[in-house]
Formats: sequence, C-alpha cells, structure tokens
Amino acid sequence: MSSTWGERVKISIFGESHGEGLGVVIDGLPAGEAVDMQEVLLQMGRRAPGHDKTATPRKESDTPEILSGLLQDTTTGAPLCAVIRNHNTRSGDYGNLVVRPRPGHSDYTAAVRYHRHNDIRGGGHFSGRITAGIVFAGAVCRQILLRRGVEIGAHIYAIAGIHDTPFDGVSVPQELLRRLNRSRFALIDSQQEAPMRAAVEEARMSLDSVGGIVECAVTGLPAGLGSPMFGGVENVLSSLLFGIPAVKGVEFGAGFGAASMRGSRHNDPFYYDATGAVRTRTNHAGGILGGITTGMPLIVRTAVKPTASISQPQHTVDLETGQDAILEVRGRHDPCIVPRAVPVVEAATALGVLNLMMEGNQL
Amino acid sequence: MSSTWGERVKISIFGESHGEGLGVVIDGLPAGEAVDMQEVLLQMGRRAPGHDKTATPRKESDTPEILSGLLQDTTTGAPLCAVIRNHNTRSGDYGNLVVRPRPGHSDYTAAVRYHRHNDIRGGGHFSGRITAGIVFAGAVCRQILLRRGVEIGAHIYAIAGIHDTPFDGVSVPQELLRRLNRSRFALIDSQQEAPMRAAVEEARMSLDSVGGIVECAVTGLPAGLGSPMFGGVENVLSSLLFGIPAVKGVEFGAGFGAASMRGSRHNDPFYYDATGAVRTRTNHAGGILGGITTGMPLIVRTAVKPTASISQPQHTVDLETGQDAILEVRGRHDPCIVPRAVPVVEAATALGVLNLMMEGNQL
Amino acid sequence: MSSTWGERVKISIFGESHGEGLGVVIDGLPAGEAVDMQEVLLQMGRRAPGHDKTATPRKESDTPEILSGLLQDTTTGAPLCAVIRNHNTRSGDYGNLVVRPRPGHSDYTAAVRYHRHNDIRGGGHFSGRITAGIVFAGAVCRQILLRRGVEIGAHIYAIAGIHDTPFDGVSVPQELLRRLNRSRFALIDSQQEAPMRAAVEEARMSLDSVGGIVECAVTGLPAGLGSPMFGGVENVLSSLLFGIPAVKGVEFGAGFGAASMRGSRHNDPFYYDATGAVRTRTNHAGGILGGITTGMPLIVRTAVKPTASISQPQHTVDLETGQDAILEVRGRHDPCIVPRAVPVVEAATALGVLNLMMEGNQL
Amino acid sequence: MSSTWGERVKISIFGESHGEGLGVVIDGLPAGEAVDMQEVLLQMGRRAPGHDKTATPRKESDTPEILSGLLQDTTTGAPLCAVIRNHNTRSGDYGNLVVRPRPGHSDYTAAVRYHRHNDIRGGGHFSGRITAGIVFAGAVCRQILLRRGVEIGAHIYAIAGIHDTPFDGVSVPQELLRRLNRSRFALIDSQQEAPMRAAVEEARMSLDSVGGIVECAVTGLPAGLGSPMFGGVENVLSSLLFGIPAVKGVEFGAGFGAASMRGSRHNDPFYYDATGAVRTRTNHAGGILGGITTGMPLIVRTAVKPTASISQPQHTVDLETGQDAILEVRGRHDPCIVPRAVPVVEAATALGVLNLMMEGNQL
Repeated sequence: MSSTWGERVKISIFGESHGEGLGVVIDGLPAGEAVDMQEVLLQMGRRAPGHDKTATPRKESDTPEILSGLLQDTTTGAPLCAVIRNHNTRSGDYGNLVVRPRPGHSDYTAAVRYHRHNDIRGGGHFSGRITAGIVFAGAVCRQILLRRGVEIGAHIYAIAGIHDTPFDGVSVPQELLRRLNRSRFALIDSQQEAPMRAAVEEARMSLDSVGGIVECAVTGLPAGLGSPMFGGVENVLSSLLFGIPAVKGVEFGAGFGAASMRGSRHNDPFYYDATGAVRTRTNHAGGILGGITTGMPLIVRTAVKPTASISQPQHTVDLETGQDAILEVRGRHDPCIVPRAVPVVEAATALGVLNLMMEGNQL
Repeated sequence: MSSTWGERVKISIFGESHGEGLGVVIDGLPAGEAVDMQEVLLQMGRRAPGHDKTATPRKESDTPEILSGLLQDTTTGAPLCAVIRNHNTRSGDYGNLVVRPRPGHSDYTAAVRYHRHNDIRGGGHFSGRITAGIVFAGAVCRQILLRRGVEIGAHIYAIAGIHDTPFDGVSVPQELLRRLNRSRFALIDSQQEAPMRAAVEEARMSLDSVGGIVECAVTGLPAGLGSPMFGGVENVLSSLLFGIPAVKGVEFGAGFGAASMRGSRHNDPFYYDATGAVRTRTNHAGGILGGITTGMPLIVRTAVKPTASISQPQHTVDLETGQDAILEVRGRHDPCIVPRAVPVVEAATALGVLNLMMEGNQL
Repeated sequence: MSSTWGERVKISIFGESHGEGLGVVIDGLPAGEAVDMQEVLLQMGRRAPGHDKTATPRKESDTPEILSGLLQDTTTGAPLCAVIRNHNTRSGDYGNLVVRPRPGHSDYTAAVRYHRHNDIRGGGHFSGRITAGIVFAGAVCRQILLRRGVEIGAHIYAIAGIHDTPFDGVSVPQELLRRLNRSRFALIDSQQEAPMRAAVEEARMSLDSVGGIVECAVTGLPAGLGSPMFGGVENVLSSLLFGIPAVKGVEFGAGFGAASMRGSRHNDPFYYDATGAVRTRTNHAGGILGGITTGMPLIVRTAVKPTASISQPQHTVDLETGQDAILEVRGRHDPCIVPRAVPVVEAATALGVLNLMMEGNQL
Repeated sequence: MSSTWGERVKISIFGESHGEGLGVVIDGLPAGEAVDMQEVLLQMGRRAPGHDKTATPRKESDTPEILSGLLQDTTTGAPLCAVIRNHNTRSGDYGNLVVRPRPGHSDYTAAVRYHRHNDIRGGGHFSGRITAGIVFAGAVCRQILLRRGVEIGAHIYAIAGIHDTPFDGVSVPQELLRRLNRSRFALIDSQQEAPMRAAVEEARMSLDSVGGIVECAVTGLPAGLGSPMFGGVENVLSSLLFGIPAVKGVEFGAGFGAASMRGSRHNDPFYYDATGAVRTRTNHAGGILGGITTGMPLIVRTAVKPTASISQPQHTVDLETGQDAILEVRGRHDPCIVPRAVPVVEAATALGVLNLMMEGNQL
C-alpha cells in the first residue's frame, strides 16, 4: 500500500512536483459512462495554482492528457490513464532541503524512509501538487454519481479560526452544492470571505501560514451502503482523506463534538416523511450508523494543518554537519492551502462513495 | 472489505453478541514469537463487562480458546484462531428491535443493508462485544512490539466534557504507559476519576449516556515507518480505529486544533539530542510527517459518541406498521463505553503499528 | 497473503492437522441465503478420510460447528465461522520429521520459512486436512450458485495414467454433474473405477503412491464474467486451485494441448442456437476468452502429484547431524489423494465463481 | 481486480492497442535501485514487433518515457510510471470486428462484459501489445533481483509440437540464462530453430497459426520464500502468468507429468552438497514444496494457444443481423506469438519473484 487505493474502482497515483509530470490510472470504472471533459477541467482548475493570493504564484495549466480508457469521451471499461505535465518548475529553489529538512514537512521522514533517494525537489511525490491526480479521478467519479442522483460539495468550514456557517445535516440544498462546486473560495456564508482572506494575508505578510477545516456533504445516497467494522463508510473515506497531504483529523457528523453530548441529544430520532421514507430529525450521525449510510446527508470534516513551508527562519538540523541549524525556506508556497483542498476533499469523497456504491454484495 | 483487515498481519473478525461466540483469525504473524497468555487475558479483562458501574452488568469471562497457530505458547507462523464463547445471553431483551430501530444504533441501517436477515440480538455483529477479537489480536501484537521496544498506552482523554491531562507528546514515560496498560479506568491524572464517574452515574440515573475521547501514545517507533498518500500511518490507523463501534472522529497530534494554529507555531523544530538522534522540540505532528513516523511519540485521539442504547423513551419508526412510534429500550447497556474502549484503541493501534513495522520494503 | 483469499467473498482458513481443530471464516456472503446443512455435510463427507482403501485409515467425523453468520440456517451477512475439531490424532507418528524431512513434502521448506517453529505434527497447517475448510466454504457457495442456475461438478480425469472419459466441453448434462456431486470416486465412465483402484492398490502394496488429474466443469455461467489481465477467470481460479496441497498444474479448455494445435482448429466457431443465444461449436477455450466467460461450460483441469508420504526407505538429510540419512515414514497416508481432491477442486471452483459473479462492476 | 496486481510491488497496467499509448505504474519499488535503461530497452525490444517473420509486420519502437519514480536512473521509492506511445496504428483494419467477433478472441466476451463500450481497435486493452507494460516492469524488477543473485531466463519449450531440450531442473547454468535473456528466438538447442520456423512459416502460408509452450527457470532463490495455501509461489506466479493473453495452462516442475508418476520417483531425495547446503538429486518439484521455495531452480511452463487472429474464413455470428456469418480477418497478426511471449513470461516471473522476496514477514 502506498499510492494505490481501492477495491472496486482502484486508483494508482504517480508523479513528482518537479519531475516530468504526474497523473493517475483508474482501474475498474464501469463501461459506458460519459465523461464531460470540460467539467473535469473545471474541477482541475479549482485546485490548480496561480489564481489567487492565498496560493503559490506557481502557474500550471494542469491540463490532463488521456492516454487510455476513453473512447469518444465515454469509459471503455479499460483502465483510464490521465497525465499532467509539469512546466513551471524552479527546482533550484529547493536545493538545500536535503541537508536541512523543513520543520513540519516530510523532508526528514522521506529521507529516512527512502534512504535519501527520494526526489526532494518541490516535495517530490509528497507535494500537494500530486493531488491533481485525485481531483481528476474524483471528477470522473462524481459525473458517474451525479447520474445516480448523488451530489457532493464541500466548503471552507474554517480558516485561521474564522468559521463559515456549517452544513445543516438534515437538509443540504442541491443549489448550494452546485454553487460550492463552482467556487474557488467555497463558502456557505460569503460574508466570511473577507475576514478569512485578511487572516491569510496577515499570515503571508508575517512570512507565516494558517490552517483550516474543510466540511463536505454528500446527498442522494441510498440507505444501506457500507459495512460494519473495517468496511464502514468512515473507514473507507478516512483511508482516502488522510492521503491528502496536511490532513491531521477526520470526523463524521457531530464528530469530536459527540464526545461531550449525551445520548438523548446525540441520538437522531427516526420518523417517516411525507413520501414514506425513513429520515431522522437531526443528523448528528453524519448520515452513518454502524458504518452504513442512513440515507440522510453524509457529513465529514477534514482538519488541514497550516502550510509547513514558511519563510521565517526556523530551527532544524543539518544532516551533513550533524549540527543544529537555522533554515530559511525560499520558493513559492501557499500561506493557506485550505481553499485549494476543498476540491481535493470532494474528489476523494467521490472516489470513496463510488466504491461503496459498487459494493452491494448483490448477485 | 468488511470484518477482514490487513496486508501483512491480517485479521478476520467473526461473531455476534448473542450467538455461539466470537473470535478472530490472525494470519501472517511472524513465527517464533512467544505469547504470554496471562498478559493476553489481562487485556481481555480490561475490555470485558461486568466489573464496573460505568458498564453493562452482563458478565462474561471472555476466556479465549486457541484453536490453531500456537505451539507451546509460541507462534508457528500459521494462522492463529481464538474463539470466545457467549454464555450470559438474554436475547429476549431485544425482541422488538427489528420492528422499532434504536435511534443512534445500527438497527435500521443493518436491516436495510442485509434485507432484515441480520442477527439483531444484542446488536449481532455490530455489537461492541465483537471488539473482544480486536483486543485479543492486539494483545498478541503488542507483545511482539514490546520485544522491539515499542510500547502502547491509552487513557481517557475526556468523558462528558471532563478532561484528563493530555500526553506530553515530546516525552511519554514508560512507567506511565505501563500503568495505563493495567488500568480499567485509565487516567494520567487520577483526580479526574471521581468527577468523571459522577458524570457517568448522573447520566445513568437519567437513563441517559455520555461519550468521550480516548488518547493513545506509541513510543519506541523508529523514524521512517509508513508511506506517502494512502499508505500513511494516519490512513492505516484510522482504517482500523473507525472499525470500533461508536467512533466518529480520529485525529493525530494537534489534530483539529492544528486548523487554528499558524505554521510558525505548529511546525516542530528539529534538533539533535545528546545521543545524536534527530528529535523535535514540540510534537504537534503527533509523530507523523508525510504519513511517515518521525521517531517522536505517535499521538492519536479517537472520539467516542455516547452509547446509543438508552432507556429513555425515544422517537422512532415502526417498520411493521409504517407509523412513527415510541421506543423504550430494555436490556443491559453501558452508560459510558469510554473506559472499555481504551484497551480496544490500544489493541487496534498495536495491530496497525505491527503492520507498519513489517512493511519496510526491504530486501 | 497466505491462508486468506478473496475480494468479494473472502475466506480465512486456519488450523493444523493435529492441533485443536481447523476451520474457516467466510466474510462477505450475501445475506438471506439459505444453507442446507445436510448438503454441506454430504460434501464434507466426500473429502473426509476413513471411508476407502485409497485413503488414510484415520477416521474423523469432520462435523463443522457454526459459530457465527447463520441464523435459522440462513446467512445474516456477517462473517460465517465454522470449526471442525480434531479427534483422531496420533502425533507420535511424526516425531522424527523435524529432524529428517520427508522428500516431496513441505517439512524442509516450512522449517526454513518458519525457523523451525512450525507445527510439524501431521504436516500442521500444510496438511491436506486443512482443505476441509475450503470444502465447507465451497459447499455454502455452491448452494448460492445453484439458486442462480450455476452447477459445478468434477471427476477423476486420470489416476496413475488411467484416464476417464473427459467432459464434452460443448454439452455437460445436469444429471452428470449431480451424479458426480454425490460420488466418493467420481467418474464419468464407471468402468474405469476397477483399473484405477487396482493401480492404487498396487502402489499401496509397494509402499508407494500415485497421482492423477481432476477435471471440473461449471455450467450455467452467463457470458461476461471476469476481466482482462489479472482479473481473468483463469487467474482467479488458479490462485485458488494452487492453494490445494499437491497441485502442480492448472489448465483451461484445451490447455497444454492447445500448444500443439493450429488456430484454425483451436478457434471455436460461434453460432446462434435455436434460442438465439451465441454459442460455440467446439469449446477448446474452456468457456473463457480474454479472461471472460463465453457462456459455454467452463472446463478446468488440475494436476495432483503422487502423495509425498510413502513408507519406502528414502534418501534425506538429518538436520541435527548435518549428514545424509535414510528416512522410513510411518503414519497413515493416502496412497492416492485424487478421489478426495475432487470435492476440494469443486469447492475452490465454487468459491472463485461466486466471487466472479459478485463483481460485475455495475451500479 | 483487473489490470492491477501485487501486494508489495504493485503494478497498474493501462493502454489500448490503437489508442494514444500504453504503460505501467509500479508502486512499492525499493528506493535506491539503479535502473540500466539500456538493459530495459533490450528487454522491450525482444517483445517488440516488426523484427521477425513469425511476428506481425507492425513496427513500433516501443521506447518508454519515464514520467516519475526515477532520479538519475535510480528508484526514488515513489511510483514509477512508464508510457509507450502508439505510432503505427491502422485502426481501419478492425472496423468490422464489433459486428462479427473473431473466434478464439476476446471480441465477443469483451462486448458482453463492457456492453459494447470497449475499444475493439486492435483488441484494445486485450491486445498482446499491452504486455509491453509487463515487460517494462519486469525489466526493472529483474535488475533488482540480479543484484541479489537471482537470475531468470526462459526459452521456447515447444512450437507446433516441436520441442526444444528442456531445462535440467537440477542445474541451470548462468551462461545459459544470460544467452536466453539476449535472444529473440530463445532456444537451449539452437538446432530446433529451423524446424520451428518452418512450422510457423507453413502455418502462415496456410493463413493459419500455431501455439507453443514457454519454459522459465529462476536460479539463486533462497529456500523459504512463499507461504502455504493461497500465498504459495505457484499461486503468485500463476495469478500473473494467466494475465498474459493466450495463456491456457501453467505447471511447475513435473507439472501434469507428475500425475502419472509414482511417489517413489516423483519425490526428490534430499542431500547435503559439498558446501553443506541442502539440495535435491532431482527436481520434479520445480523448486517448490508446500508453496515455498526449496532453494533449487524454480521451473514453470506456460501453455500458449495458437494466435486467434487468422485470415482463413471462419464461422462466426453477426451481432447486428442476429445471423450466423463468415468472417475474414484482415490486419497484421503473428502466426506464432511464442517467441515474443518468452520475454513476457520472464518479466511476469520477475515481478512475482520480487514480491515473494519482499514478503518475508520479518521484523
């Protein structure tokens, strides 16, 4: 296990930040599914750098080339491979990192793990840039899901301690999800954009960075997806979401908040709605009970740590001299990656949900 | 995927709460590892019910029978199967649940998932009792780890909003872990026991329940375990921890707290200690950078929701009549499962860490 | 990977020949499937020893105890665990094997693999007896398949160079499969029983053993099961069939015979039958093209080597003295395991086919 | 499962015969392994078409582009992606195949499996051309193995019923393997080349094709690799080898021949050689006992059916008219793919053996 994931729809992610390129192979997609490439590009664009002062000034078009698996923009059932070339690389920026690892980054652990053979330019395979492959795969999966009535959208739940309005777990409007799906700074309450941007800018001016939380909702899921124990919806999604660099926590529904609630409040009362469907009055469960979907919206939050690469002088070690040292990072870095993490969280969720939809143990 | 987990050491969990019994098959254990069965029983006993007013009054000896894989208390390399019989079952208590699903429990989702063929007696395969197999497997794994200098211990980080002292991520004393490993109400600051127990008792008297958080530390890990993306330490552990019933959140190091920190504070400065080892001054990373261990203590927190089975009247649906209904749950339930979740979290962590130790991609 | 197999329906096999017992956990079975335990016992009985002079005189009732996963003889969707106790063990018979490994057996390789910690009594986990767990799992799977019109039967294709009539790959009658399913010495042409038994008896009198070939057919399969490359029907079935001890070859359809055929003869011409179904005039493909079922009968042959444990003096090494030595094996051994391998091949095939039926990549 | 394989070193194969290109992602390679690209190209060239009258006249340079995973020709530990572009495609040749499926080919089964959405141009993902990705992966793996003293070589065991001298399983000279590794028509006894080529030419002139058998040997393996049951060497290798298009049988050591041997002859006597190593006098086991390597040469044979695409008129069905029909295949096809299958078998074996070497369940 490493950069390969999945049981039904499998992805194999490859690439490095400053190598030839990156991409993904998606194996196990159902055949005959139309892929709207404009929609895929739109999702890729939401993650791509160079559009915003919260993000790195590195510019990449991030246009994927399809090598296999599509014919006339329709899945053939064969593995779909998409490649994204790197163009705007300035590897010289990272020349000293192998010697003085960046605090909070994978430089040191990757050096140990790979005996210093890892590609450290731009973070190599550990770079957030590699998530472009996840976004591509997710963009394909969500089109397949949308045709089955399943919609996915995420927003910036918090940046630097400033919070957006959370999802109402009982009712997530379709129009809201579609608006979020189009946004580069996805918020439910757009009034939070200004203070959030101010906090990011303040951090940037201080050569610092900030973290945040992404909240994602999935609507239209039938009840009965997932399995007990290790095949649960939470297990499947967390095994993907923790694959996004900088993620340090994942919670569903009330999540850590559930820990200080009483059962009488946390339990979501069941009722029959006007259509005869079983629903719950509240949704502290985040749409999942016993690892299995309830049919209510799925709600998952993902904690994103502040960007590790900051330009302030930092204490580190010099692996050559064996002495403590001071590091001043150069290069282009996002003072806050949370806005760009939003489409990645959506994409990872789409991939996980499609896998769950394809299980079903039916004959 | 469902009740089977693992790539190197694989477990297959089976059993139902009120069936013949439950257990685990562990495949892939290294051969020649001594298993101290007294130590295993001690860990099983920490999870077993019937010892404490916070827990269900159901009494079970939970003594595992070993069917295979051990010879003279040493692993043979063949799959190790342990079976625990159910004795003290009172299935009549659950007779009405198939009709009126308990809010917050898996009754409804399991009925949908398995077309009402699931065993609903005592929660069946969804019961917390099934975690006895995880505890058994973990008890074997931790003995193997201990011989390699790796120790694991967890404590009640919070119950009902009352907090214990957290681990100091920079230095987790061996004696502390060993004391926690022996405790049925594991706390760093034992002064929190009385208020926590009072909160649980108050909930119990109100026919209610409370949740909490378990914090687990692993010491003695070498730097360099784990992989980027989906093979990361966080992915591996969360895919196990979310398999424990009632877990709704998992976070590492500063976790969700990292979301409101700045990079300059969150980044853990590297330094050389007196022995020449690379260490960090703080440990907001929880011992993991880029999915790979840093060599600092691994810190993971798991949110446990309040017990779903409470005896207060609750709103639910009647699946026979198709009408809304009121449910009054009978049966024996823990008003708080957090103390008993502590050894389960330790066990799941041990299993995950042993898998990571056995990867290593070396020849 | 070791004694665990499967993606949809997973089995985890455990046990040793002379330990407490053996068994299997089956995870991922569809819920609501009736299991006729008498039929299961009948299949277990076909494999069980003690009924025939071709087999070991060791007697075992081989009655499985169901620990989980069934309620009122119907699958619940939870893992099904079956345990078979060992009773008639005479471990003293094997006391010298750790020192002088039997030629042709796993004694030596297991000692190296497991650093001499493996249980060598009766072959331990390498014993053919462990296949009882496969037969149990297969007996459950074939009942599920039978309800979907899929039937499986195998016969002794050859013993000691004496051949039965092969299956006619174009047309395998249901009555034939059902007769084979009930037989302990399964032959299409019963006239071959006498010469085959004579050859086995002759080997037994010479303190020797003989091998053979098992041929298995599956009817009622729809076209379109399986996948290209590593997900092909051949890959799935061979990964199971080579798990049966003593199997040294697996071939499909014309198999090795295809190597000396011309394409014009080997290619099976397509035609429409009276019902409008696409069929082939011949079936050299064994019902599989490109890894995917054609809808014609699936034909697979499995080569079984002669029993390694023979009582003639044999040259071996003495691992204690470091000298060459002579070994005279005692104990109870089958001079020919082919008749008992027939139900094991059927069971492994059933398990593989059920997995393929449950793939389908559909939403 | 489909075009993804592996537990330690995983490959994900993608591509179609007449699409943009094809390739492979290799995940889990150890870091720091030098890759001699000239040697890789040499192996790619042995499989590439256009060099020989036994093969298709289609010419492809088959030069892989490395997108990731290598830095200064050394593995970084990150996934290695290699892409091979298609150039010489003449898709018009295949225009009628969706309507009239070729007998013996995957046209019909793929159409059913993928609901006619599969790319049928040149066989699409089912084309033998896709094995170029396997050869690339194997060429990398065998360099890693060679540094550990493990060598792999295969030869044409038979074509059209004409046999080469088989490997002597007890002693396979290094020089022989190295000679085979360089050959495009790999034979132990070069005198068989003329009659084999004559048989192929005769088939070609008759618009027909012939099949054959590839025999592969692996030397330098330590004893103790592999596991019982489903983790055995036979299971691992067969799950790969059956992924090569046209393979219909796999056998190890004496294989199907073992079925007519007696135990006294088949059992390989152990002895100590001059260096104190345990060896066997014969090697009917093909270097594997109980699924685990003995330390003797590993011997595996793979049956290759005659090329399905022949130009003689053949009986098939017309899926448009629903009537039986006559098909005359045009296009460029190999009258015999056995010589080009030799490096593919070697490559698949290398990949399987490297996985087995990396297991070892050691801490």
